Amino acid sequence: MDDRKIRVGITHGDICGVGYEVILKTFAEPTMCDLCIPVLYGSPKTAAFHRKTLNLPTNFSMVNSPADAQSGRLNMICCYDEEIKIDFGQATEESGKAAMISLQRAMEDYKKGEIDVLVTAPVNKSCMQGADSRFVGHTEYLEHEVGEGNESLMILMSSIMRVALVTTHVPVKEIASQITQEKIARKIKIFNQSLKDDFTISIPRVAVLSLNPHCGDNGLLGEEEKEIIVPAIEEMREQGIQCFGPFASDGFFGSGMYTHFDGVLAMYHDQGLTAFKALSGDEGVNFTAGLPLVRTSPDHGTAYDIAGKGQANENSFRQAVYTAIDVWRNREINKKVYANPMKIVSQEREGRGRRGDKELVE
Amino acid sequence: MDDRKIRVGITHGDICGVGYEVILKTFAEPTMCDLCIPVLYGSPKTAAFHRKTLNLPTNFSMVNSPADAQSGRLNMICCYDEEIKIDFGQATEESGKAAMISLQRAMEDYKKGEIDVLVTAPVNKSCMQGADSRFVGHTEYLEHEVGEGNESLMILMSSIMRVALVTTHVPVKEIASQITQEKIARKIKIFNQSLKDDFTISIPRVAVLSLNPHCGDNGLLGEEEKEIIVPAIEEMREQGIQCFGPFASDGFFGSGMYTHFDGVLAMYHDQGLTAFKALSGDEGVNFTAGLPLVRTSPDHGTAYDIAGKGQANENSFRQAVYTAIDVWRNREINKKVYANPMKIVSQEREGRGRRGDKELVE
Repeated sequence: MDDRKIRVGITHGDICGVGYEVILKTFAEPTMCDLCIPVLYGSPKTAAFHRKTLNLPTNFSMVNSPADAQSGRLNMICCYDEEIKIDFGQATEESGKAAMISLQRAMEDYKKGEIDVLVTAPVNKSCMQGADSRFVGHTEYLEHEVGEGNESLMILMSSIMRVALVTTHVPVKEIASQITQEKIARKIKIFNQSLKDDFTISIPRVAVLSLNPHCGDNGLLGEEEKEIIVPAIEEMREQGIQCFGPFASDGFFGSGMYTHFDGVLAMYHDQGLTAFKALSGDEGVNFTAGLPLVRTSPDHGTAYDIAGKGQANENSFRQAVYTAIDVWRNREINKKVYANPMKIVSQEREGRGRRGDKELVE
Repeated sequence: MDDRKIRVGITHGDICGVGYEVILKTFAEPTMCDLCIPVLYGSPKTAAFHRKTLNLPTNFSMVNSPADAQSGRLNMICCYDEEIKIDFGQATEESGKAAMISLQRAMEDYKKGEIDVLVTAPVNKSCMQGADSRFVGHTEYLEHEVGEGNESLMILMSSIMRVALVTTHVPVKEIASQITQEKIARKIKIFNQSLKDDFTISIPRVAVLSLNPHCGDNGLLGEEEKEIIVPAIEEMREQGIQCFGPFASDGFFGSGMYTHFDGVLAMYHDQGLTAFKALSGDEGVNFTAGLPLVRTSPDHGTAYDIAGKGQANENSFRQAVYTAIDVWRNREINKKVYANPMKIVSQEREGRGRRGDKELVE
């Protein structure tokens, strides 16, 4: 791993929300600009409007490409130059277009190898769909654009826990039908691999939550635990992954049991995220695991209700920048560590451990 | 209201779980026995076994009926005298029967007016069903036995919040189909009335959560918000109830917005309870609102994994006793306060306020 500073691409998200506010507040601190080379895909006029309205001190320097960007300042790539009317807290067609242009431009540069990681400010899904009807969410978009055929996994993380989801943006009435043994097993695998590669945990412990209340109460409150979740856990344990459960989510988070695991796999959005946000405060980060691209975002949305008021807390966005840098570095470290494994390691991996100790075999 | 101590009926719940442990630990403190007249519907042999195994100091005095019970000690009604084998942590047929006998006997005495309130120790639902196949949960059982035609509402409460549920013990795949405008409106009404009567909040503020993630994201992630929940909230607001929402549960609990409301109505079990338990720690209490009987229970289950080990924390059970007493007293106070309303109050109630001020009319 070289010690060069990494290029952090940043999309400005929904311009009628708190995106610019948290970005400008984050890079108001000189240490944040020194930590990396921040490259904001934005608009000078839109940024200036936010800067002025919110009375923020952050300066930015226009650059033509990330190659020209420097550390020690907030660099901006101009995605559009026209003046767009900003109605704080309103979902507008223009804000959807502006967010989409920023994301597309960042993707182009990532594909050219000009940025290393991506941090996205929050968008409004329905505005984004106005700009591109195929847009479901950042995760799905990036999977399609730069996934190289890999499946992604949404991980919410803070200093106290990492939560991943089996189903993400799905109406409640469709959750149960989307839960399959194969899907859970796949998500456990991706989660386990990400905990190893991205967080350098050599043998991760993954907890799996139940779908139904009280873990299905032995079938009284649903059969999915017996028929789908337990078999998926057993299948993955047979493959050497340390996964446990299913656990009923209320007791699991209420008793603090989540502190015993490196990762928690929840079955659906509100099950995982409600507990996560309730316990993690303002430092939560959304990390998209499983993709070649390292992408993070704050765990909050556009926050229309406080947009333009100067009340937004930038901590989650700051943590998203830290996390993107950390994961990128961890991946580089892992690449180096596993580049030339000793012979004994490869023997063990293939199940021919010198001591014949099955426990050593992953 | 007279100042007599109130009779707290207590069922022993599942005898292979932590029920006896939390009961005996709670009444090991003399102040708890002085606060009320505790009447435990149990078995002397079963209680003695727990007392000895867990090395607990609590004594109990056998009485024939609650009328003979006294304050300053833990009184016990003998529900059965035979010796029942106790396998800690096992769901057995015998433990289901023992729990059911205790509950039935307490109900008989309540109907005769011999106990004032009921605190139930946790049971195992499938064991209880073995004893009586109609048993779905305490709430449903009590509604049927002593509801007098009223519908009940499960409220989870602690010092920081009160959460009620629209649907309770329902598999996830059936949640959406059980959410109707009429049901939500009914639950808001019961919740509002309970906050007034049981907690003496004169104008309660009730928050209503969304069913789908991101509040349905304007229809992208489900139509129930637009079609069912918003109309229900509007209907209740028209009737003068201060209810708000729908709120997406992750942001609602994550941002601390729950602190602005007297009650939070969640759409389903894990949505409400996961956040509640994560934030309330070990002091949560389950209160069944809407019934003539005041019934509370701790917010934990049988906790088979730690049964018989002496590790159970009795705080939730103790809070359940406090809450039952508080609610009973609040109801008595309310009865007195509203027994002889001044004429102006009744005029206003009928919409004929002296000042013609519609705001005054509830």
